[in-house]
Amino acid sequence: MGGDFAPQAPVAGALQALAELDATHTIQLVGQTAVVQAQLDALLAGELAHLAQHRGRLEIVEAPDVILSAEKPSAAIRGKPNSSMMVGLRLQAEGGSDAFVSAGNTGAQMAASMVVLRLHGGLKRPAIPTLFPTAKHTVVVLDSGANVDCSSDELVQFARLGSVYAEDVLGRTNPAVGLLNIGEEPEKGSTVAKETHQLLAQDSGVRFIGNVEGRDILKGANDHGSVDVVVCDGFVGNVLLKFYESVAPMIVGMLEGAGVTQQQLQSALRKLDYAEHGGAPLLGVKGVSIICHGKSSPRALKNAILVAVQAVESRMNEHIGGRLARSEGAA
Amino acid sequence: MGGDFAPQAPVAGALQALAELDATHTIQLVGQTAVVQAQLDALLAGELAHLAQHRGRLEIVEAPDVILSAEKPSAAIRGKPNSSMMVGLRLQAEGGSDAFVSAGNTGAQMAASMVVLRLHGGLKRPAIPTLFPTAKHTVVVLDSGANVDCSSDELVQFARLGSVYAEDVLGRTNPAVGLLNIGEEPEKGSTVAKETHQLLAQDSGVRFIGNVEGRDILKGANDHGSVDVVVCDGFVGNVLLKFYESVAPMIVGMLEGAGVTQQQLQSALRKLDYAEHGGAPLLGVKGVSIICHGKSSPRALKNAILVAVQAVESRMNEHIGGRLARSEGAA
Repeated sequence: MGGDFAPQAPVAGALQALAELDATHTIQLVGQTAVVQAQLDALLAGELAHLAQHRGRLEIVEAPDVILSAEKPSAAIRGKPNSSMMVGLRLQAEGGSDAFVSAGNTGAQMAASMVVLRLHGGLKRPAIPTLFPTAKHTVVVLDSGANVDCSSDELVQFARLGSVYAEDVLGRTNPAVGLLNIGEEPEKGSTVAKETHQLLAQDSGVRFIGNVEGRDILKGANDHGSVDVVVCDGFVGNVLLKFYESVAPMIVGMLEGAGVTQQQLQSALRKLDYAEHGGAPLLGVKGVSIICHGKSSPRALKNAILVAVQAVESRMNEHIGGRLARSEGAA
Repeated sequence: MGGDFAPQAPVAGALQALAELDATHTIQLVGQTAVVQAQLDALLAGELAHLAQHRGRLEIVEAPDVILSAEKPSAAIRGKPNSSMMVGLRLQAEGGSDAFVSAGNTGAQMAASMVVLRLHGGLKRPAIPTLFPTAKHTVVVLDSGANVDCSSDELVQFARLGSVYAEDVLGRTNPAVGLLNIGEEPEKGSTVAKETHQLLAQDSGVRFIGNVEGRDILKGANDHGSVDVVVCDGFVGNVLLKFYESVAPMIVGMLEGAGVTQQQLQSALRKLDYAEHGGAPLLGVKGVSIICHGKSSPRALKNAILVAVQAVESRMNEHIGGRLARSEGAA
């Protein structure tokens, strides 16, 4: 029931995902049964009629409450215990599913995931990774908004969480982690950045390649080589993410004014389309909770479901537990 | 002697500026006399021969020491008391000039400006504003790297400094100031951001229009209207500035691959060219010290000299003193 285009986008995305996944996978659509059923019927009678063969692998699970996008997370999860968010996550906690995907209220999803799935030991809050598309490869930036006022210990945890995500979901081998900072040298930056640099340089759970400046992110590299994961606090990460989302539309507008065609722009900038990536797992909870953009299209949600499958099948969650424990032991 | 293209770019920029300024303006070229003289002779014998009539309004001032771009600021200003940086700033402090312009080591220029020109009362460090070109108007973002670990009081000072700069140098009437944050609501963000929001809402020296998110900067507006000045700490500002500088080249590269012509790109993206703006005054010192990008072209330096003239003639420095004092009194 969450996201700007619900229930159409999640229902359509689920059907499209089933068409790409093998027959062992099934999907539960969690929400107000009548609304979801009507949407499903409409899609199967119309534009997605060719996917009717996958109907049998879809189940509708009743969840009467709906959390709105502007609701306060804590109030929403307390006041609406039977929202699609809470019901969907409880299914997972009770063994009735392996993963949860939503384009709904991000704050509520984070809070509900913490309450229902709980956190790995040693973590105070989960982190939200964002994929920054670049001309080269995608770069994971985390945290992108769940955590502000981070300590150096928390930034080190983000580095470990981001490493496992890059390995298990993006398929990177021995991913390189950089610390977002305002200069290359270890002694540059804020007090927290300086402390974090020292801690990461000694951390056995992370391949640390030093500081990464603002200009290095889209290069996907600093002077020490390619970078897969960029660590920062959620304040900087959130500002950067929203800024980046606004740049391409501005430049596209300026180019259209100069006579560049829509077609040229679309084919050139396809790599920058967030829908290619779909969604990202909330990192640090004991389970799989995939956060999607509120404006997710059916294709974005389909891709988010594939991310969820990848996270489950790669055993990302188990690896995160091990990585956090290993680093604790080493410290 | 500073900047990647010195002495050619500053000498050529000075000649070009004189050609645009009226005859009452003169420029001192501060550096190693023989080197500067040779460069000047070469330009006047060659590509800038048409500007020879302005030679009489140029004076060369000897400064034997040269600060390199990688030198530590404190060591550079102590160890090289007769650098072009120190000599040029002392000229101003002693009444021999009205403004100083440099494309050299930014950290050294900031430190030297603090030592030689000194700070207005109540300030701990100066702030560096950066102009973010947008499709609409330029937006001042400050601080962009001089200050990390800022208190809410310091962020309020940036708001006052940025307001005067926007009025006096950019010609904005009653400029609107926004606080960079991760949400619209006053209670969003880091501890410092929340405190700063409260202080700005009560500040008589600033027209505060609330929080500005990452996506609002290039819109030049938030939901409350147009924004001229965006306040943030120097860590976030520096990351954002360097990130922004890297976006256009990446997108240009992707578009060239898709057959968009160089000419279309250049004409469309001219607004994004930092050389149009030239440089920005270091805000908070008692005088005018214009900081330019290390890669400044002659045109960028010419424009920076015009910014210096505007700052002097608008009496920006006096207005900053008054604005800081007024706000102190009001608090």
